[in-house]
Amino acid sequence: MPAQTNITPRSKDYAQWYQDVIACAELAEPANVVKGCMVIRPHGYAIWEKIEDDLDRRFKATGHKNAYFPLLIPLSFLAKEAQHVQGFAMECAVVTHSGLRAVDGKLEVRNQLEEPYVVRPTSETIIGHFFSKWIDSYRDLPLLINQWANIMRWEMRTRLFLRTTEFLWQEGHTAHATHEDSQAEVLRMLDVYRDFAHEVMAVPVIRGVKTANERFAGAIETRCIEAYMQDGKALQAGTSHDLGQNFGKAFDITFQNKTGQREHVWQTSWGVSTRLVGALIMAHSDDEGLVLPPKLAPIHVALVPIWRKPEEQARVLEVAERVAKELREDGLEVVLDDRDDVRPGEKYYHWERRGVPIRIELGPRDIDAGVAMIKLRVVPEGTDPKAAKKTIPLADIGVSIGKELDAFQAFLFERAKKRMHDSIVKVDSWSEFEKVFADQGSRFVLAHWDGTTETELAIKEATKATVRCLPYPEDVPGFDPRETGRCVKTGKPSAQRVLFAKNY
Amino acid sequence: MPAQTNITPRSKDYAQWYQDVIACAELAEPANVVKGCMVIRPHGYAIWEKIEDDLDRRFKATGHKNAYFPLLIPLSFLAKEAQHVQGFAMECAVVTHSGLRAVDGKLEVRNQLEEPYVVRPTSETIIGHFFSKWIDSYRDLPLLINQWANIMRWEMRTRLFLRTTEFLWQEGHTAHATHEDSQAEVLRMLDVYRDFAHEVMAVPVIRGVKTANERFAGAIETRCIEAYMQDGKALQAGTSHDLGQNFGKAFDITFQNKTGQREHVWQTSWGVSTRLVGALIMAHSDDEGLVLPPKLAPIHVALVPIWRKPEEQARVLEVAERVAKELREDGLEVVLDDRDDVRPGEKYYHWERRGVPIRIELGPRDIDAGVAMIKLRVVPEGTDPKAAKKTIPLADIGVSIGKELDAFQAFLFERAKKRMHDSIVKVDSWSEFEKVFADQGSRFVLAHWDGTTETELAIKEATKATVRCLPYPEDVPGFDPRETGRCVKTGKPSAQRVLFAKNY
Repeated sequence: MPAQTNITPRSKDYAQWYQDVIACAELAEPANVVKGCMVIRPHGYAIWEKIEDDLDRRFKATGHKNAYFPLLIPLSFLAKEAQHVQGFAMECAVVTHSGLRAVDGKLEVRNQLEEPYVVRPTSETIIGHFFSKWIDSYRDLPLLINQWANIMRWEMRTRLFLRTTEFLWQEGHTAHATHEDSQAEVLRMLDVYRDFAHEVMAVPVIRGVKTANERFAGAIETRCIEAYMQDGKALQAGTSHDLGQNFGKAFDITFQNKTGQREHVWQTSWGVSTRLVGALIMAHSDDEGLVLPPKLAPIHVALVPIWRKPEEQARVLEVAERVAKELREDGLEVVLDDRDDVRPGEKYYHWERRGVPIRIELGPRDIDAGVAMIKLRVVPEGTDPKAAKKTIPLADIGVSIGKELDAFQAFLFERAKKRMHDSIVKVDSWSEFEKVFADQGSRFVLAHWDGTTETELAIKEATKATVRCLPYPEDVPGFDPRETGRCVKTGKPSAQRVLFAKNY
Repeated sequence: MPAQTNITPRSKDYAQWYQDVIACAELAEPANVVKGCMVIRPHGYAIWEKIEDDLDRRFKATGHKNAYFPLLIPLSFLAKEAQHVQGFAMECAVVTHSGLRAVDGKLEVRNQLEEPYVVRPTSETIIGHFFSKWIDSYRDLPLLINQWANIMRWEMRTRLFLRTTEFLWQEGHTAHATHEDSQAEVLRMLDVYRDFAHEVMAVPVIRGVKTANERFAGAIETRCIEAYMQDGKALQAGTSHDLGQNFGKAFDITFQNKTGQREHVWQTSWGVSTRLVGALIMAHSDDEGLVLPPKLAPIHVALVPIWRKPEEQARVLEVAERVAKELREDGLEVVLDDRDDVRPGEKYYHWERRGVPIRIELGPRDIDAGVAMIKLRVVPEGTDPKAAKKTIPLADIGVSIGKELDAFQAFLFERAKKRMHDSIVKVDSWSEFEKVFADQGSRFVLAHWDGTTETELAIKEATKATVRCLPYPEDVPGFDPRETGRCVKTGKPSAQRVLFAKNY
């Protein structure tokens, strides 16, 4: 089936643009036949695999080990932590039967289970159960586990990658002897996520602490990284939770300390999901389609050989194959597009829409001159279109392309960072606040807030903007958390500005 | 929690031995609270990750791409292929509701779904649905997709890794323009599995064709690799199915051929699962615990420093750390066991039970002599226990250890191959056949069979032995498929001998 090629401009309909970019790059599609689910197609899954690989290395380097726990969770487990069940009960898929039978040619359920199971919406409860078996002494701590798994949350409004009934994720679950230790883990893993977002996704993020209202159900504190999308909205890209002793007490996870007394463990959990792919798309892509940072691009280079006369074809292809081989030996993924029933222009278009960072054009005259023409997927705004193409020597082409990819990775990060920083604004009056968030508007707003959930919800009700976090000062230029003031909505005293935005 | 340390000898109770090996190595444990499920613990999961990595490379090298399809399958999809639904309906977990509510402090299900979903027992149906959307022209073929996923089949009798309600696997799904192409794919992927089993798992397998009775539900032919376990039983380690046009017709997957006509595609599917970990354990382990081939061992070397006087400790540890660093730079996983409250003997025992291929002992006198003592996890039967330890120079220790690991990998394969070949026997009388399979007995038996399902089932009923496959002649020494004869049970004419064994 030929892929969709039409992309609605961002300025016209941002939500449609997002869907079009995904369709044109063949990253994923709605499953439709399975409520709110998606199919992750090969090009989209290849991005997720690169995300997994890099994060997995970072988790292992910080001492975590992977394990695998059951998909199904007994109903009674979910009920054990009061906050937790409140947060997830409404959106759980429930398994009630263990077989089917044909009745009058139609399939019906059979074998009702004594106790239903839920498909895991997150695994604190089932993992808590096993931690209680595995942990006995302070010598068993810290216990640092990660799981790569599928998760199911019955969502009403779904959007590819960003919010789907089933999604893929990793969930870290750790247990510690002291609150000091578990708090350090929460901070450590949040920084792992921040480093990954910056270094690999080229997406700048703001670290921060969530309000009580936005906290994970069952946590005593939730920290997050918030990313800036091109429409001014925020996307929560990862969270790291201080679970205190809540699950330790609910699942009776205790250890004997060095003085021989039994204590409940202190726990953390932290996760990122396939929604990172959505963040990636929204942060970098443009009206021509997908844009990917080289470190997550399944294909780094699209090599398009060009010939007019048949006798040129063999000669150009021979050199093209040599170039492709050289680049592959440097660890790059190269597609040599030698289709002979497709014109070069169509090929350019095809690979552009799929976010390939660099295109190499190679024709007979280039070969005679010992050069190739390259074009980056994106050039800085205002670049003369003619200057967008560069000529590079064929000798040592691997080194040149490597440098171009590094520079492209850095360019995307700087561009996204500038967008985010340009967006940040301090707002001190309610009328101005309403104006920023009117209609589809959003940006990163630093405003005073009286600290109550009541006001937070009233602001959301009025503007759709929410408190994204109490940001880390070093992540927000010009932000001083010591600056007190008056709540933008109620005028009551405020201890500090917080970050507001509409969000995905 | 201290790990179990007691292992029942194989000769006493093979099934208990298997469980003990797993418990002592902390590979996995029954979930109990979730019917028939298991928790894969970090040491077990690390083996599975290595299996995944290697196979994934092989799939990609043969042109396959990974994708991800929904966990849930609409009931109506399952019903579309008549054989398929018969094969799986009895063991499907069924999702009937999408939420919970608290009633009198107890959780109850709410939001009954219009159409229930099954948790995928395999994905031919849901993938078939999407193939029908993606395939339109012969240019879209072959379509070569693989999925890494969790699977659920409600099993009555479960056994860690070998048969669990939920398991992890990969499932390849491909579509082709001709039966010739799809048949070639079936053979190609079976050989990928065979190569992996031999080269990486060090487990010899026999390739073959399944009987109609043992065929995958919905396939027109199923091929398999059968591995030999130490108790004489067979373990089906992987399958590759020729699906013909069965799912193509059920899901209306058609393409326009080069002459402009529409045809149904020809499909294959193939898979291996976490049961490979069970095969690995049963093939190599012994009464001292887990034995692992180096290519799948999460830890290659356990380095145990030895000191008596406190003043020796620092000196020995310094050299041990240098050795560990050198080995790690060679890409080996090394654990330096420097616990100072555990005696060396206990450490040896600890790492032996976890299947670490090589132990290095390093004491002050070794260092003075510029050597280290090594011990392989297993030595050839009949080796003088004193000769089981070797002295190797510290200079170039990385090269020496690398050679030892290669030799150990080869040794395990040869040992397992000899066991399998020694087991194979031709049996021509029913009384002899019954004797081989009496009580717990099993071996690989080549016997004549009249080719009917009726006789196959009668033999199974009488002896618990089943036809494992019609083997590839090159995989079975002394086997000539042209040799006709008389069925060992009925005396009716037989076209060829087939492979019988009890199986897991």
